Amino acid sequence: MTADKIEDVAKRRGFFFPSSEIYGGMSGFYDYGHLGTLMKRKFESVWKRHFLSLSDNFYEIETSDIMPESVFVASGHLQNFVDPMVKCSRCGNTERADHVLEDVLKESFEGLTAKELTGIIKKHGIKCEKCKGQLEDVGILNMMFPVVVGTVKEAKAYLRPETAQGAYVNFSRAWEHLRRQLPLGLAIIGKAYRNEISPRNVLVRMREFTQAELQIFFDPDTIAVHEDFEAVKDCKLRLFPIGSRKANNVEETTCGELAKKLPKFYVYHLAKIQEFYLDVLKLPRDKFRFKELSEEERAFYNKYHWDIQVQMNAGWTEIGGLHYRTDHDLSGHAKVSKKDMSVNIEGRKFVPHVLEISMGVDRNVFALLELGYRQEKERDVFELPRLLAPFDAAVFPLVNRDGMQEKAQEIKKTLEKAKFTVFYDDSGSIGRRYRRMDEVGVPLCITIDSETLGGGTVTLRDRDSMKQVHVAVSELAEQVDMFLHGARVEDVGEVVKKSKAE
Amino acid sequence: MTADKIEDVAKRRGFFFPSSEIYGGMSGFYDYGHLGTLMKRKFESVWKRHFLSLSDNFYEIETSDIMPESVFVASGHLQNFVDPMVKCSRCGNTERADHVLEDVLKESFEGLTAKELTGIIKKHGIKCEKCKGQLEDVGILNMMFPVVVGTVKEAKAYLRPETAQGAYVNFSRAWEHLRRQLPLGLAIIGKAYRNEISPRNVLVRMREFTQAELQIFFDPDTIAVHEDFEAVKDCKLRLFPIGSRKANNVEETTCGELAKKLPKFYVYHLAKIQEFYLDVLKLPRDKFRFKELSEEERAFYNKYHWDIQVQMNAGWTEIGGLHYRTDHDLSGHAKVSKKDMSVNIEGRKFVPHVLEISMGVDRNVFALLELGYRQEKERDVFELPRLLAPFDAAVFPLVNRDGMQEKAQEIKKTLEKAKFTVFYDDSGSIGRRYRRMDEVGVPLCITIDSETLGGGTVTLRDRDSMKQVHVAVSELAEQVDMFLHGARVEDVGEVVKKSKAE
Repeated sequence: MTADKIEDVAKRRGFFFPSSEIYGGMSGFYDYGHLGTLMKRKFESVWKRHFLSLSDNFYEIETSDIMPESVFVASGHLQNFVDPMVKCSRCGNTERADHVLEDVLKESFEGLTAKELTGIIKKHGIKCEKCKGQLEDVGILNMMFPVVVGTVKEAKAYLRPETAQGAYVNFSRAWEHLRRQLPLGLAIIGKAYRNEISPRNVLVRMREFTQAELQIFFDPDTIAVHEDFEAVKDCKLRLFPIGSRKANNVEETTCGELAKKLPKFYVYHLAKIQEFYLDVLKLPRDKFRFKELSEEERAFYNKYHWDIQVQMNAGWTEIGGLHYRTDHDLSGHAKVSKKDMSVNIEGRKFVPHVLEISMGVDRNVFALLELGYRQEKERDVFELPRLLAPFDAAVFPLVNRDGMQEKAQEIKKTLEKAKFTVFYDDSGSIGRRYRRMDEVGVPLCITIDSETLGGGTVTLRDRDSMKQVHVAVSELAEQVDMFLHGARVEDVGEVVKKSKAE
Repeated sequence: MTADKIEDVAKRRGFFFPSSEIYGGMSGFYDYGHLGTLMKRKFESVWKRHFLSLSDNFYEIETSDIMPESVFVASGHLQNFVDPMVKCSRCGNTERADHVLEDVLKESFEGLTAKELTGIIKKHGIKCEKCKGQLEDVGILNMMFPVVVGTVKEAKAYLRPETAQGAYVNFSRAWEHLRRQLPLGLAIIGKAYRNEISPRNVLVRMREFTQAELQIFFDPDTIAVHEDFEAVKDCKLRLFPIGSRKANNVEETTCGELAKKLPKFYVYHLAKIQEFYLDVLKLPRDKFRFKELSEEERAFYNKYHWDIQVQMNAGWTEIGGLHYRTDHDLSGHAKVSKKDMSVNIEGRKFVPHVLEISMGVDRNVFALLELGYRQEKERDVFELPRLLAPFDAAVFPLVNRDGMQEKAQEIKKTLEKAKFTVFYDDSGSIGRRYRRMDEVGVPLCITIDSETLGGGTVTLRDRDSMKQVHVAVSELAEQVDMFLHGARVEDVGEVVKKSKAE
């Protein structure tokens, strides 16, 4: 199973496909079809529900994609947000230098300087992968897209390479609007843009992508505590610290134990991120880990930086991170803008520090599609997290007569009123309709039959186990809700079919 | 009351404010604070619920902001999406030529050619508004922002000036994914970008803004019918046709009557747009109208074009439109991409036509804030549409003892579980808490008192009438839902306070 296979299936079924495909597409740009869009919106909404509920002082804001150059002078992106690139002296093909080395030497070269990379290329005599020509010395390229605003070059600006800066430049205003109280959280879900030299791995490294980022502003004097730490102290985190790389071993460590090495405020948020993946989205435990980054690997502004990784077919893949950015950004903006970014709490004046939870929405969608894809003998299925499936449920009339279609439509409307997303289908055999829903990951099929018309029961069929149960129409909405939140199908109704055969 | 006043209030309370303000901002860019973001998300969600439910073959998709140049060659934007600009020969200040004339001569000059505008400037001897210098001849400027993608100028691209093209370039794929059935609707809610020469009117003419657009692909042979037309035929539309401009008179015309002049498929969608504003958002009827555009005024690709307008302090303002774009876009893409864009229905092969419902989300948010703003003797209030308020309701414990805070939190959680957005406040007098909620437009305040603790009632207070009623806790969620959908507060509980005095 390769990423290409998933891309192919996603394209055919309506999840995602290359952008502007009729014009040959542009490398690093993808569009979402109706199913992918439904799934992406659900990811965003479950993400917001989980992370904004960590405090009643956490809110979503929305800020511009285009920001003036000064923002990126202050943040350091103008100087430091660069990638090493290497050009072929013969054919002109340009690639990211560390990726060229990675492809040939099968190890990671992230974080090395241009000079170091040039040295390795020379030492191993590496040639252009396209034409075998001589490679030039490694250069650097800023990854931001410049934009000129106005008619007389009013302003030099850039498309933002992360959403985070929108929260930082607005911090003082949010401080006034909210309760002048720390921690204060500002989340932004929106597009970010990076002119990647070599986009790759489908939705993993794109040039235009959606980030879900939460900036938590807090008092650095309280980093060693978190008021809810007790609730997570026995939670076992799946960690891949620098020290365990040689043994290539994921360690399970309690938050209490880890807090001897890392501040509790940081550890608490690791626990909440793991909870999001393992308890809310129900990702298999062994597919998830936090990877500690070394000083060379982490972004230039991070003091602590653990990546959120899931195990995909191509290996462990970063889908987000928890970044302790210190006062790097606020102090940078204070310096460049000459505006005071400090707060005054009970006579103590200081610049808040920032802990950032950052996730790539497209990477998450892609990883969940890949992890969920199964080709079985009889069927093809996306075992997506139930809360993220394009539709929560499908409703079928068993046959198209005796008022079953009307009853099915009525049940669909009732479920929609209870805020579920429901797909209606009355064409083909029930078996075929099950297969179609399996193929797009719908977790629950609800069949209306003569029992239903008599005011009785409907049949629920679970996508993953293919088990079937009867549920009373009067209890349907409640049982669907329990099922979507993780209950086994045999616990929401009376079992009528146990086997996988249909 | 001016737009500036609304901007000032919005800025102080946390609705919206200039983007990157600490760096002096950039003209035409705004950010949303926590309240504005909540309101904008609700607008988007109510919009989707209303317009996607017009057919079970209408879906949301998500497409890239950056698109290759060929897209805009095909759509005509590269050649035609231009504004007339005029530069001062002395100070270099550049403005949109028709706006300069409008400011001085107090009439509209939209749609005139550069040559015509130059003639009028010369005739009236109009000078630079900044330095009184001589104005140069009017030139034209393409309003799209160019973006260079890749390291070796792989691709010339643009930030999209409308979301619509994303739906057109993906039409053939959606046709396969969906049911090969017309009408087929593809909605996109996302950013669009225009390098306006003179951004103005706060959120009305921005350089980066959010569009909610629905592209309805249909069979042009069926434009004279709509299967649900009977349901709207007696609906009276508020129209401002070209013929009534002199009398400056809004006409009320039934859909049946209008269908003698315009195709039923077009008229039906006018009715559904009016329903969105008057029945769903409950905008005052006299603040709403459709304005017919003349051939010179309408966009180059539209055959029928009526603007959606609301009456703001500065006059009638366009917040969206219904555009019959014919096969302009699909045929343009077929020609440039050399891909067949036609469909084959029962042996008949044709290129579908497009009807577009297009709305500016920011313009809508701004118009609704302005229309809802009242300064009364005792208070300042935003009478926002109930469904769009930042919070559906606020919950207060009457006093902070006897377990009332816990009870209030419990009721907040119950309402949140029923998918309402709820704000909790326990500081200051109840009167002050009411005022604070009025100021940010929360339509309903719920007070918990000793009656509530005994398992009895809570007090509901209506933002607009300030009436208070008692409602049983057991019926609260249901009554809140009825109220938000338009019920009068006296119809959801037992009246305890009738007057406006508090």
